[in-house]
Amino acid sequence: MLREKSLLMIPGPTPIPPQVAAAMTQPMINHRGEAFSALFEEVTEGLKKVFRTGQPVYVFPGAGSGGWEAALVNTLNPGDTVLSVSVGDFGERWFRVATKLGFAVERLQFEPGEAADPERIAEKLAEDREKKIKAVLVQHNETSTGVTNDVRTIARVVREHGALIMVDSVSGLGALPLEMDEWGLDVVLTGAQKALMCPPGLSMIAFSERARAAAETNTMPRFYWDLKAAQNSLLKWQTPYTPAISLLYAMRAALGLLEAETLEGSWARHRLMGEMCRAGVKAMGLTLLARNEATASNSVTAVVSPVDPKRLRKVAREQFGVQLAGGQADLADKIFRIGHLGYVVPGDVLQALAATEMALAQCGYEVQVGRAVAAAQQVWLDAQQS
Amino acid sequence: MLREKSLLMIPGPTPIPPQVAAAMTQPMINHRGEAFSALFEEVTEGLKKVFRTGQPVYVFPGAGSGGWEAALVNTLNPGDTVLSVSVGDFGERWFRVATKLGFAVERLQFEPGEAADPERIAEKLAEDREKKIKAVLVQHNETSTGVTNDVRTIARVVREHGALIMVDSVSGLGALPLEMDEWGLDVVLTGAQKALMCPPGLSMIAFSERARAAAETNTMPRFYWDLKAAQNSLLKWQTPYTPAISLLYAMRAALGLLEAETLEGSWARHRLMGEMCRAGVKAMGLTLLARNEATASNSVTAVVSPVDPKRLRKVAREQFGVQLAGGQADLADKIFRIGHLGYVVPGDVLQALAATEMALAQCGYEVQVGRAVAAAQQVWLDAQQS
Repeated sequence: MLREKSLLMIPGPTPIPPQVAAAMTQPMINHRGEAFSALFEEVTEGLKKVFRTGQPVYVFPGAGSGGWEAALVNTLNPGDTVLSVSVGDFGERWFRVATKLGFAVERLQFEPGEAADPERIAEKLAEDREKKIKAVLVQHNETSTGVTNDVRTIARVVREHGALIMVDSVSGLGALPLEMDEWGLDVVLTGAQKALMCPPGLSMIAFSERARAAAETNTMPRFYWDLKAAQNSLLKWQTPYTPAISLLYAMRAALGLLEAETLEGSWARHRLMGEMCRAGVKAMGLTLLARNEATASNSVTAVVSPVDPKRLRKVAREQFGVQLAGGQADLADKIFRIGHLGYVVPGDVLQALAATEMALAQCGYEVQVGRAVAAAQQVWLDAQQS
Repeated sequence: MLREKSLLMIPGPTPIPPQVAAAMTQPMINHRGEAFSALFEEVTEGLKKVFRTGQPVYVFPGAGSGGWEAALVNTLNPGDTVLSVSVGDFGERWFRVATKLGFAVERLQFEPGEAADPERIAEKLAEDREKKIKAVLVQHNETSTGVTNDVRTIARVVREHGALIMVDSVSGLGALPLEMDEWGLDVVLTGAQKALMCPPGLSMIAFSERARAAAETNTMPRFYWDLKAAQNSLLKWQTPYTPAISLLYAMRAALGLLEAETLEGSWARHRLMGEMCRAGVKAMGLTLLARNEATASNSVTAVVSPVDPKRLRKVAREQFGVQLAGGQADLADKIFRIGHLGYVVPGDVLQALAATEMALAQCGYEVQVGRAVAAAQQVWLDAQQS
């Protein structure tokens, strides 16, 4: 078997388009020269269209997780109170980052599989009569549980209170609808290695006017993730320190692919893949971790595993050439996840479902081979009619 | 003219070997899987040989400059006093980073072109009878002035006092001799885009036993650059957040090239290129910025420009296909720099000298065409004899 060819169906890093991989091989350039400025302008302007914002998008060399720190240290003052809204592992991680950085963190946690309830957020904020809460942190899409939050409604609720609404859209942006300006989001952050079809190593973040105003008077000590330094450099389409040039070449190529598809096209493709995946999963008699299918993610599907998920994933990988993701933290022994975002097409979802079904059979779970794919095919066919 | 082919002779980003560029195009993998762990182990173990240390080398997705923050926030407590030893712009930047992060910074500045005098450092430290100074920050090689500091002697002096000795070797490591363990260095940091022949986007840092012990009790708030999180993840050859996989592929390939050449071979090549470059510069009747040739850098040569350096660089680039670097900060109108580190060979230095000489002629400076290259050739020939 040609084991080198294996379908990567995890929720990031996602497969790299050949055009993007090739783009990285372009020669190095002087990062203080004109060619770099042209590249950086093209990338940051292109990203504004994906963020749906008129605000600048800042691109830092770093992991998407760095955006958690950037969001906090630029807009808050030492000891400020924030509200962490968490529906899974990435919510917990951002909570821990805020704690580590010395902020006072109030919490609103939801069970794995639940989406954040805007009404409960509203209640929590209503209790804060002294307006101590300066910011609310929430995931757009919780990668660990395959649940998408209703960020639009949450933002409305938060803005009524007056706090900044900060959104981690690492596994959302580009795949799922998000309108930074229209929805009134104050901070939106993402990474390169998800729907944006690039290798990991770029952290992208945008700030609303309100958030940028907060950054002006902010006293939190910071260097690497400092917005003001990035802002000053951006006036000349430059960066405060050496940018990750090869990854910016990749991003320029990937943004070109996304522009050709159109952002709405990408959202529709991800919605189709999500629907196909869920139809296939249900056809195998399995249960989604998402309790309400209306909030199930279109970029990653989390499935309650009827067999040992580690064994299932090993069989799917080794025997059937598809790489699935495991669960994180407490969910490690309970679920598996099928990522379907980035450079992934509906045909890949069929292959992933087929491999999952066969791997389940090999693990002793009773399936009728072919059902999952048939169900997903039907969804795809129906989509062609509409 | 085939303007796309242009010789990049700046002190970073440096040219990328084709093998390294190609390595980046390898498929994405699960960063929590075995293939990634094998890659990460190979890279971090390979880097230990370049750092000349038995300590782990931590690889962060980020710019080399991030290492400045990592060095400080992991080993010092809020408000601690450090001594910034600065011989140029990068020394000044590290000073500003320490200030921004809230440390009390004492300063020892040397004129542009001077190396740090270990005796003056010793005097400064001798005044610190209460041992308030917890760390001394110094550049191994100051990229902005083309001067190499005697880090070995400085380290001895600092260790006598008891402070931690922290070394920025961004433009040194791999090109210039550095022995982290043998010289007793507490922190050594570098970037990927200099002598290590990779694109920018990886920040690498190693800590001595003493420095790691300081990190154990450290109370500085931190997340992204946290050593302890990286340390825990490294036990499984993993990272606390998504690593820059394509750049790690690049680094594996580059370390392979460096191992084939041998590190001592790379040091010798850079020494030869430095000697050739200085001989050529002097043959043109120009003055090195380095006041004492014994401390002139073998990775970048800074030259006092007899004509407008911006115009000189433009002519060299546009008419003769060689990209030189300008001066930074106050030196912008005074000097130009020839970078000769990384994937650069002595023949490239000949070409850079020829282009510089011709560009000087075009700018109205009197030169006898051919002299610079002849002088450099003689150095190369002599090196073949010895």
